[in-house]
Amino acid sequence: MSTRAPVRGLLVTVEGGEGAGKSTLVALLAGRAHEAGVDVVACREPGGTALGERLRAALLDDDRVTTGPAPEAELLLFAAARAQLVAEVLRPALASGSLVICDRYQDSTVAYQHGGRGLDRALVAAVNRAATGGLSPDLTLLLDISPAAGLARAGRAGDYMEREAIAFHERVGACYRELAAEEPQRWLVLDARDPPALLAERAWQRIGRVLPASRQQARGR
Amino acid sequence: MSTRAPVRGLLVTVEGGEGAGKSTLVALLAGRAHEAGVDVVACREPGGTALGERLRAALLDDDRVTTGPAPEAELLLFAAARAQLVAEVLRPALASGSLVICDRYQDSTVAYQHGGRGLDRALVAAVNRAATGGLSPDLTLLLDISPAAGLARAGRAGDYMEREAIAFHERVGACYRELAAEEPQRWLVLDARDPPALLAERAWQRIGRVLPASRQQARGR
Repeated sequence: MSTRAPVRGLLVTVEGGEGAGKSTLVALLAGRAHEAGVDVVACREPGGTALGERLRAALLDDDRVTTGPAPEAELLLFAAARAQLVAEVLRPALASGSLVICDRYQDSTVAYQHGGRGLDRALVAAVNRAATGGLSPDLTLLLDISPAAGLARAGRAGDYMEREAIAFHERVGACYRELAAEEPQRWLVLDARDPPALLAERAWQRIGRVLPASRQQARGR
Repeated sequence: MSTRAPVRGLLVTVEGGEGAGKSTLVALLAGRAHEAGVDVVACREPGGTALGERLRAALLDDDRVTTGPAPEAELLLFAAARAQLVAEVLRPALASGSLVICDRYQDSTVAYQHGGRGLDRALVAAVNRAATGGLSPDLTLLLDISPAAGLARAGRAGDYMEREAIAFHERVGACYRELAAEEPQRWLVLDARDPPALLAERAWQRIGRVLPASRQQARGR
């Protein structure tokens, strides 16, 4: 594999179930960063690259896709989109010192494919490592919401994932909370029912506590 | 993961570089099986399912794709197509006792992504396991050919993989031969310059030696 440039920026990921308000929070945080004069790159998964968007279209935005792929295929597809995003967007942006805010990342795969689908956690972790090459978030924001509230908010008919049973989404949410409890220093759990501006304010304060340190020294990982 | 039906059929895979004659051999063997009254399912990778064909189109048949994805993304995409093929086609066909002949399978990933691209072999093996769930071929036919001869035969401009440097295809071929040497009981190495009918005859004789045993007892794996 190619030599990797050191990571100088900060990787913040936003996680949560359907309708939790992830894309709104990413947009508000990108705006705050811009106002503060911080170089910021916002992206989403799956997608964020030409290849990722084609995969997203093939998987989520295609009305002919009514049942979804086999669980292992789904796991590997999301991982493929992530690998491309890491190589094409995240590593270059982090090497140049940017703040990167990503709507979903490795923890989505654990929550949905392990928590939701029941795939073996070690298998999911191995595939995640293949996709990220070990590039982990510095900070992860969890927008915690009940599946009923989130799905009601998401509104429209939704893709095949959103049409999964409530029990599936309950397992996803429970897995997210377990992940946050395992690594409290990395996660900030937010109540997604709070107003977006308040959520962005709390998240931005937390980012601010991590950001300066990352600018003071080049870090390899 | 779901309970799996026992494997009663036989999985034969056909491997080799570009222009080696894999699809011709698969077609001839499927014809021989049909004549002999053996239930046969022929398929190809990537592809062989609706999802796989969409991925194949996004990856190989799209003229806009000139550079190819990041190596890790490529690894995971081929694996995703394989996982879907295993779940949707291979396991059901093998459970019902069919002879399955597949144009490319797990060894392509080792030869191209480890041998060709230089990705770590353990990483490639872990992703292969995620895709196949441990379903390995009973017999693998290697159509051995020099890259120059194969690419000349393939003719047309080719997809991004076919346009890789000769050195890449040399590494792929060398890796295939190493894999065959590691497991001689699983591999039959054929000289792809031999006439297709002769290749099919030799392959069919070898399949015939393995086929009856597999019909006499249900095997779990």
